[in-house]
Amino acid sequence: MELIVQKFGGTSLSDEQGRYHVLRHIIREYEAGLNIVVVVSAMGRSGEPYATDSLLELVRHNGNSLPSRERDLLLSCGELISATVLCSLLHAKGFSSVVLTGGQAGIMTDDRFGSARIIDIKQHKMRRQLEEGKIVIVTGFQGMTTDGEMTTLGRGGSDTTATAVGAALNADIVDIYTDVDGILTADPRWVSDAKPLAAVSYEEICNMAQNGAKVIHPRAVEIAMKAGIPIRVRSTFSEGEGTLVTHTQALRNKGIWFDRTVTGLAHVRGVTQLGVINHDGLADLQLRVFRAMARHEISVDFINVMPTGVHYTVSEDDTPMALQLLQGLGFEPHIRKGCAKVSVIGGGMNGEPGVMAVIVEALTNSSIPILQSADSNTTIWVLISENDLAEALQALHTAFGLHLT
Amino acid sequence: MELIVQKFGGTSLSDEQGRYHVLRHIIREYEAGLNIVVVVSAMGRSGEPYATDSLLELVRHNGNSLPSRERDLLLSCGELISATVLCSLLHAKGFSSVVLTGGQAGIMTDDRFGSARIIDIKQHKMRRQLEEGKIVIVTGFQGMTTDGEMTTLGRGGSDTTATAVGAALNADIVDIYTDVDGILTADPRWVSDAKPLAAVSYEEICNMAQNGAKVIHPRAVEIAMKAGIPIRVRSTFSEGEGTLVTHTQALRNKGIWFDRTVTGLAHVRGVTQLGVINHDGLADLQLRVFRAMARHEISVDFINVMPTGVHYTVSEDDTPMALQLLQGLGFEPHIRKGCAKVSVIGGGMNGEPGVMAVIVEALTNSSIPILQSADSNTTIWVLISENDLAEALQALHTAFGLHLT
Repeated sequence: MELIVQKFGGTSLSDEQGRYHVLRHIIREYEAGLNIVVVVSAMGRSGEPYATDSLLELVRHNGNSLPSRERDLLLSCGELISATVLCSLLHAKGFSSVVLTGGQAGIMTDDRFGSARIIDIKQHKMRRQLEEGKIVIVTGFQGMTTDGEMTTLGRGGSDTTATAVGAALNADIVDIYTDVDGILTADPRWVSDAKPLAAVSYEEICNMAQNGAKVIHPRAVEIAMKAGIPIRVRSTFSEGEGTLVTHTQALRNKGIWFDRTVTGLAHVRGVTQLGVINHDGLADLQLRVFRAMARHEISVDFINVMPTGVHYTVSEDDTPMALQLLQGLGFEPHIRKGCAKVSVIGGGMNGEPGVMAVIVEALTNSSIPILQSADSNTTIWVLISENDLAEALQALHTAFGLHLT
Repeated sequence: MELIVQKFGGTSLSDEQGRYHVLRHIIREYEAGLNIVVVVSAMGRSGEPYATDSLLELVRHNGNSLPSRERDLLLSCGELISATVLCSLLHAKGFSSVVLTGGQAGIMTDDRFGSARIIDIKQHKMRRQLEEGKIVIVTGFQGMTTDGEMTTLGRGGSDTTATAVGAALNADIVDIYTDVDGILTADPRWVSDAKPLAAVSYEEICNMAQNGAKVIHPRAVEIAMKAGIPIRVRSTFSEGEGTLVTHTQALRNKGIWFDRTVTGLAHVRGVTQLGVINHDGLADLQLRVFRAMARHEISVDFINVMPTGVHYTVSEDDTPMALQLLQGLGFEPHIRKGCAKVSVIGGGMNGEPGVMAVIVEALTNSSIPILQSADSNTTIWVLISENDLAEALQALHTAFGLHLT
């Protein structure tokens, strides 16, 4: 019998309309004869009493002095409350369901409280409940150590629970329900004609997430990719099929892989460009710079090392510390705040000539200076001024025909 | 080293003033060098978001259709939230503490969800944390089955957790903090000069609780009594020592047992008196009546069986069903609604003559008819009209000199 994992986010469960749709999706699959595991996040938006943020607010005025072990205990209540509410909704409609905490579902983790890693999933309890015909509701975002300590998986953790459970049970598919119609070609707040994608590869969605697109957490994708479990990112509030995420080859086999060069755009704001000129011909200038950054755990990007000096970027938050470190080394860095990193992503661009040419032409035609660039075999990144971001995204989106997706 | 269990109710933890006092009591004992286990209830009064009632409200509009297993999972969040809030308050003041759920604290129960019984307490985890110098915070009201299912102990359950933990760890004392100055000679809302008692025996406090006094839960007392662990019922908001509860002999040894005849008064309202006259000389009238009541789980009290018939009382809630059953048997019962049961309680009244005489004299002087009476070796009960309750309680309180306690 087919088995499906459905993951619902907190906003879907926080009001009556959302719950109506959540029930609709669960009952549709149940009545189609599928075994169902539902993974839920904490209920509600920021500010509502049972949302993760609100639980943390309870201890925030005590100077956040809660140890991480107890913080995880507190946070586990968020998912437990939404899971039991969903269970009661299903029972009220006559569908038998059972709630399993992370630990009860057999999700065993290490003991890094707040950002635990799943080390094993003991699936017998979920299996037994499924065999009894029950809809199994698993609290997302959490697990248990072998000592019986409750842990949480960190931000994006419910997606990870969903794909890890899907992998352990060898699910046919993992449906990640969200408030948009799948994965879009660009952020619709910036590109008005952004379009939902029918399918993307695991690698593409990872690239999008790592480059600032608010899609599914890369860790969750990685687990599904290893197990070869397809993911569908779809909307709670519509009938759309959403975006299928799987191996490129599987997409080709299904005939839904288009030979596109560029799949979508992503972007990150709040980037600072730093430059250090090697006035004194120091042999170890680059070493000194990056060793200092690494020691203070400052992430660097767009690294451009030349005999004449070095350019790289850091986040807005890390800028003061990075500056202080460079000045401490005796350098007088160039600094350009307010930059944005635009990522042009496509699993099909590997080996395709001319992608960079299209980017340069589109931005040049819009008089947008490229401050720096970098590329891998599936992504090209350009650094531009944040002031140019809207125009750049729109120009690139049009240039690659993404509005025709 | 001495070990103390401190139990704090939900109202004590729900506002800043209460928390200030809770911390004061914990820190005082900690700085006196004691090992401390703190047991907490769910936070807040009815209507506040993390109170037990509010959690249940989340599923109430779904027709209360939550299975009891999942209901216990939901309710467990109440204590978990208050425990972690207390933990953060202690850490903010520099005191190291750890939160243990019922299961983590080793409180093993049967699987009667909603009213589970403790079957064992595995104390090693609590011991280890105490040995590390930590204040151990245990979530009250809950336990775990050997299968890893979370259970709750039912109403009054946090008191039971406190005395059971006290018994398992062989605590020197269990302090039950509440919002009154210990156990009073009568309900102060009815008797203006009710006084706190310095000490009562386990049997007396059980009698009081069973007869309507809102003190500590009888199940909790029973556990302490078996283990011989003294309890102190005291106020969160004052410096008073409260009421010591232990064996009569222990109180005598400490020189704090007064040779009092009557210790206090308790009462229950909403009682209905029923009478069936044996007009037809039936041999099995009583059997028929009480068998019918038992089959429908109606509790009966003040049973008075005579050749001429039978009198007894039932609660207001059970009255319609009791009437229907009696009429179904072909009887025409006498009925008197709006009665109250007054209990005159005293471990020292056993064998003391004249207690009943004092009661009759006090009530007669106030022109209060006694509708029925009953007695055991530590309690005398009288049934009166609810309209006479205030006057009766005050008259009895004065007659036994309880205002001089």
